[in-house]
Amino acid sequence: MSNTTPAASASSAVESFDAVDLIRTKRDKGELSTAEIDWLIDAFTRRYVADEQMSALAMAILLNGMTRREIRDMTLAMIRSGETMDFSNLGKVTVDKHSTGGVGDKITLPLMPLVASFGVAVPQLSGRGLGHTGGTLDKLESIPGWRAEISNEEMFAQLRDVGGVICAAGKGLAPADKRLYALRDTTGTVEAIPLIASSIMSKKIAEGTSALVLDVKFGSGAFMTDYDKALELAQTMVDLGKDAGVNTSALLTDMSVPLGLAIGNANEVRESVEVLEGGGPADIVELTVALAREMLTLAGQPDADVEAALADGRAMDTWRRAIRAQGGDPDAALPVARNTHTVTADADGVLGTQEALPFGIAAWRLGAGRARQQDPVLHASGIDLHAKLGDTVKKGQPLFTLSADDEARFPRALEALEGAYEIHAPGTVVHRSPLVASRVS
Amino acid sequence: MSNTTPAASASSAVESFDAVDLIRTKRDKGELSTAEIDWLIDAFTRRYVADEQMSALAMAILLNGMTRREIRDMTLAMIRSGETMDFSNLGKVTVDKHSTGGVGDKITLPLMPLVASFGVAVPQLSGRGLGHTGGTLDKLESIPGWRAEISNEEMFAQLRDVGGVICAAGKGLAPADKRLYALRDTTGTVEAIPLIASSIMSKKIAEGTSALVLDVKFGSGAFMTDYDKALELAQTMVDLGKDAGVNTSALLTDMSVPLGLAIGNANEVRESVEVLEGGGPADIVELTVALAREMLTLAGQPDADVEAALADGRAMDTWRRAIRAQGGDPDAALPVARNTHTVTADADGVLGTQEALPFGIAAWRLGAGRARQQDPVLHASGIDLHAKLGDTVKKGQPLFTLSADDEARFPRALEALEGAYEIHAPGTVVHRSPLVASRVS
Repeated sequence: MSNTTPAASASSAVESFDAVDLIRTKRDKGELSTAEIDWLIDAFTRRYVADEQMSALAMAILLNGMTRREIRDMTLAMIRSGETMDFSNLGKVTVDKHSTGGVGDKITLPLMPLVASFGVAVPQLSGRGLGHTGGTLDKLESIPGWRAEISNEEMFAQLRDVGGVICAAGKGLAPADKRLYALRDTTGTVEAIPLIASSIMSKKIAEGTSALVLDVKFGSGAFMTDYDKALELAQTMVDLGKDAGVNTSALLTDMSVPLGLAIGNANEVRESVEVLEGGGPADIVELTVALAREMLTLAGQPDADVEAALADGRAMDTWRRAIRAQGGDPDAALPVARNTHTVTADADGVLGTQEALPFGIAAWRLGAGRARQQDPVLHASGIDLHAKLGDTVKKGQPLFTLSADDEARFPRALEALEGAYEIHAPGTVVHRSPLVASRVS
Repeated sequence: MSNTTPAASASSAVESFDAVDLIRTKRDKGELSTAEIDWLIDAFTRRYVADEQMSALAMAILLNGMTRREIRDMTLAMIRSGETMDFSNLGKVTVDKHSTGGVGDKITLPLMPLVASFGVAVPQLSGRGLGHTGGTLDKLESIPGWRAEISNEEMFAQLRDVGGVICAAGKGLAPADKRLYALRDTTGTVEAIPLIASSIMSKKIAEGTSALVLDVKFGSGAFMTDYDKALELAQTMVDLGKDAGVNTSALLTDMSVPLGLAIGNANEVRESVEVLEGGGPADIVELTVALAREMLTLAGQPDADVEAALADGRAMDTWRRAIRAQGGDPDAALPVARNTHTVTADADGVLGTQEALPFGIAAWRLGAGRARQQDPVLHASGIDLHAKLGDTVKKGQPLFTLSADDEARFPRALEALEGAYEIHAPGTVVHRSPLVASRVS
């Protein structure tokens, strides 16, 4: 049976270098050799290279960049710092999706069962939210009984029997990257494209997927707001995937307005189920279908009728089996907050502004997200939109509803939303950018 | 009586900031406010800002620079992290000299008594060597009985009675800078001009001198080899001094060949005594006189006859009194190494190459310098040159002599010297740059 491979022996690195020399090389716009990068990541894993040295290097990388070869070597060294997985014994093509994160981004929930319903294995090893962007596992944990942490044996069994799985990534994948990521968070070096790319891709390559579709977001609600930077990140990751033998492509998608109508956890599960029932908001359906097509194309099924699988219940059937396989009850009632606060339009007109970031921050303040890694998430907290950007609204019509058990959370959430939505004069034409801006492969 | 002032209370900083925001500001080429810098250095002193955050910031400062105002604020904040001294009750003008360090740079030894012999107070709070550049205290400790560590009371008494003192800087001066300096050493951020400038100047300003002359070196044996970088550093430090009310000027001096004929500790003291006896190598005399003139000009004595004070024994008299005041015997024999190894010319010709850096490294390998802060220095180890750059030499004539108790040290020292000296064809004209390249004030 396929299973995990233990970490490569640290003692395989024979050549030894000086950390200060390596930092100076990047500082002075030089290029690190493969042997230097291998040594660096191994020495960082063994804590021989100190946190303060790695953070100075991360800043030099952020400001001076890395070549494609350096990024590939860094990614491969990160993978070697831990265990890897191998799905080759499954007898199915495996395709994974990764999103750089956004506001209202629940796409993994309908996407996994949709793609899996075509006989492709979809191992969605996911994370939890931090800050204003939600986490897939947090959303699914709204479902009574559902377990994110499953053993590798359970994961392989579910991939074989159900076809798809959304679960927590094993702690053994790319541990050096986990340590570097935590360090970047406190040293102002999160935004380094070579490090973002190697962080995402080391985990995805270590997972052993044969194909990967990246949803790289840009716009105010995205991690990387600038389109050109997002494009650079997408190209870097696609190159990395290909260099490592993973069939990789990316869609660049607009994250300047919230995705769908639900921002939170339980409400995002509800919205995902609507999509699996053949309904749901148009933008969620559009992005789910676009990503499913992309994944199925990489899996050798370019002509798969994705819409039909949503309409005829095949995707829903896979969803229900996947939820049950992880202890969840797909028919159970989802948590509902004790208090709500609805904001209405103060004039007739057109909803001319609806900014993703403040809505993400407001939902976070309601308790849908966590401030620190160890904090719990309040599954019933969140925001439901009643109008989307460009919609015509009447005075007094509900615009959105805040939900939380503790109504003391409403004022600070509303504070975050000041200026985040605006009613323009009736008849105003609001420009909406296309959801999928471009494709990189 | 004048004495030290305790450190300013850390609780005086009321405004609070986020370290990551400050790092991002410098990363994105922004400017930190005075309040932000005050908070940063105070928080770093209290260990609330972590080493890895400070090292990422140091890298951002190295790559993106700092404005004159930011450097001034950083320097003042460093000063406030510890105690300060006040010489105003001495009733004399105080003038200090600081050298950025070189190979064979013993200028402080003859300079202090020379300037002090004109009735100016010269408090030379000095350091120890690290790496290939020697330390003034290490050299003086070759003298039997001489103590570098004296109390503030002893220092003030000596300044009053003798006029000059060379001693260890109190540990209480700018402790935040000491911590940052140690961090820079391991994170490839030593070469950041704003940080070098604030490091040097925070200590000198905290010492409370009323005037300061900087000997900023460039060339292969200097810390900052590039002339333009050295000029930038000199200008930055002169600006800083003036902004803090210290009458400051700088000489830019060539450090591409060793200074004088002695590189080590005891042998450098011997050479310094020769200068105080009215002799000594021409370059040592030239630089001592130039710096003495500069210091006396800042002290209001632009017409002082410096050469006369060397020739008539006034400077020597002050030297002997200063050495005795610190427990040293100016007439005691200095340590001599048990073993020597002399290298001779392998052809007739002209000494066309004599590189400072390899000679510094060779002396360091002989034991004249230390690899780690806690290592001892071997006072008898060193190199004596018998010919200087541009001298005509005959085959078989001694070029230089290595000295060390342990002859096992010779091979590695000779290895460092490969290619460091070359005999060119007889009659070759060797270009020697002027010792003092320029002045900044």
